[in-house]
Formats: sequence, C-alpha cells, structure tokens
Amino acid sequence: MDVDAVARAFVEHYYRTFDTNRAGLAGLYQDNSMLSFEGAKTQGAAAITAKLTGLPFQQCQHNISTIDCQPSGPAGGVLVFVSGSLQLPGEQHALKFSQMFHLMPTPQASFYVLNDIFRLNYA
Amino acid sequence: MDVDAVARAFVEHYYRTFDTNRAGLAGLYQDNSMLSFEGAKTQGAAAITAKLTGLPFQQCQHNISTIDCQPSGPAGGVLVFVSGSLQLPGEQHALKFSQMFHLMPTPQASFYVLNDIFRLNYA
Repeated sequence: MDVDAVARAFVEHYYRTFDTNRAGLAGLYQDNSMLSFEGAKTQGAAAITAKLTGLPFQQCQHNISTIDCQPSGPAGGVLVFVSGSLQLPGEQHALKFSQMFHLMPTPQASFYVLNDIFRLNYA
Repeated sequence: MDVDAVARAFVEHYYRTFDTNRAGLAGLYQDNSMLSFEGAKTQGAAAITAKLTGLPFQQCQHNISTIDCQPSGPAGGVLVFVSGSLQLPGEQHALKFSQMFHLMPTPQASFYVLNDIFRLNYA
C-alpha cells in the first residue's frame, strides 16, 4: 500500500467535498466513526454530517500546508495529519487549523474515516 | 477502558520525560514505532530516541493547551491529539505545536507509542 498516495488522495477529496458539497462528506464516515471538533465529540456518520453541515458558516475554503501520514498497524489503517488554514467569507484572516484522520480500509478497497480530530490553532 | 484517563496520564508522562530526561523516552517506543518530526520520518525505538535526543536544544519546557482522544479500533489502541507550546532557552516566544500519538496496548497492560507525528504551527 502506498500510504502517501492514499493520504494525498484522501486529503484532496475530503477538503474539496467540504468546500463544495459538505453534505457529501456523509459517505466518508460509518456508524463507528468518531469526530472531535474543537473538543466536542460526535459519533456516527449521520451525527457527524449533521455537525459539519450545521457549522455556523456556509462557504469556506481550506488551504492545506502540510500532510503527514503513517500506517496505523496490522489492520491496514492509515493515519493522516494535516495542517492548513480555513478562509471564511467576510473574514480578513484565515484560521489556522490542525486535523488528524484515521482511515480504515473497506471491503470495496476504499477507505472510511474511523477517527477525525479537528482543532483550530490559536495564536 | 477509560480512554481519557489513559490519554491524560500518557501526555503528562511523555512531556515530563521529554523535558527532564529525554533519553528516557526510549521506553515508550518499540521497533515498529514511527516518528514524523516536522516531516522527517524515523522508525524504531533506537532511531527515534536518537532523533529526539539529537534535537538542537538541550533544555525545553512543554506547556499543554488541549488533549483530545479517541479509541482507534478493535485492537485497543488510543489516539491522542495534543496542542501546546514549547519554550526553548533564550527564546522570548514559545513555539506552538500540534502532535498526535497512536498508543497501542502491551502485554504488560501498559501502552507504547506506535505512531507519533509532530508539527510546529507556523503563524
């Protein structure tokens, strides 16, 4: 498995979907998926999608600065660690963030997000 | 398993060891452990310890701002996501960082670090 290629493709797909069709993120999560968003925990694809689509901004644009990845063990998972910035409409300054994903393989030779932890980087 | 308690205890132990006896971190890694430090990858307890003890500063103090954690799947692992700042001697401003750890259980009912990804948060 080319872990770097998996990570790059996932990151590109995830943030493009977030910025253009946020409800489409639902397909990346499953019932055992977990999200910690600024410390608030949510579990399950439906609840996670509700959380993400309910954030208090409609349009946004993520710009990615770094992507680190490692295999997460014998189950074939991939850990992806992202840093970047989030530009919101009407805001002069982009918000810096760090986010990690734990991707797990599916029977369809794809990946879903088992773990997702997001934090803004406060200056 | 109380994932939050595991994460808090690990974080407290890890950064205290880093700041007071960096070579002692060797006991937290195993041969399959991986470190990505500012994008540079290292594998194995010996190489990781050499990397960490060889960083170009001797004294430092980590201050932790946030700890997020989630169980990482059926193997009993724990994902820990930390944000904080790193104060180096002679530097006026502390460096902000984000770091994630994937802890895996050992037969001795403890945990070791399988995955470790560290990034400074550039302003």
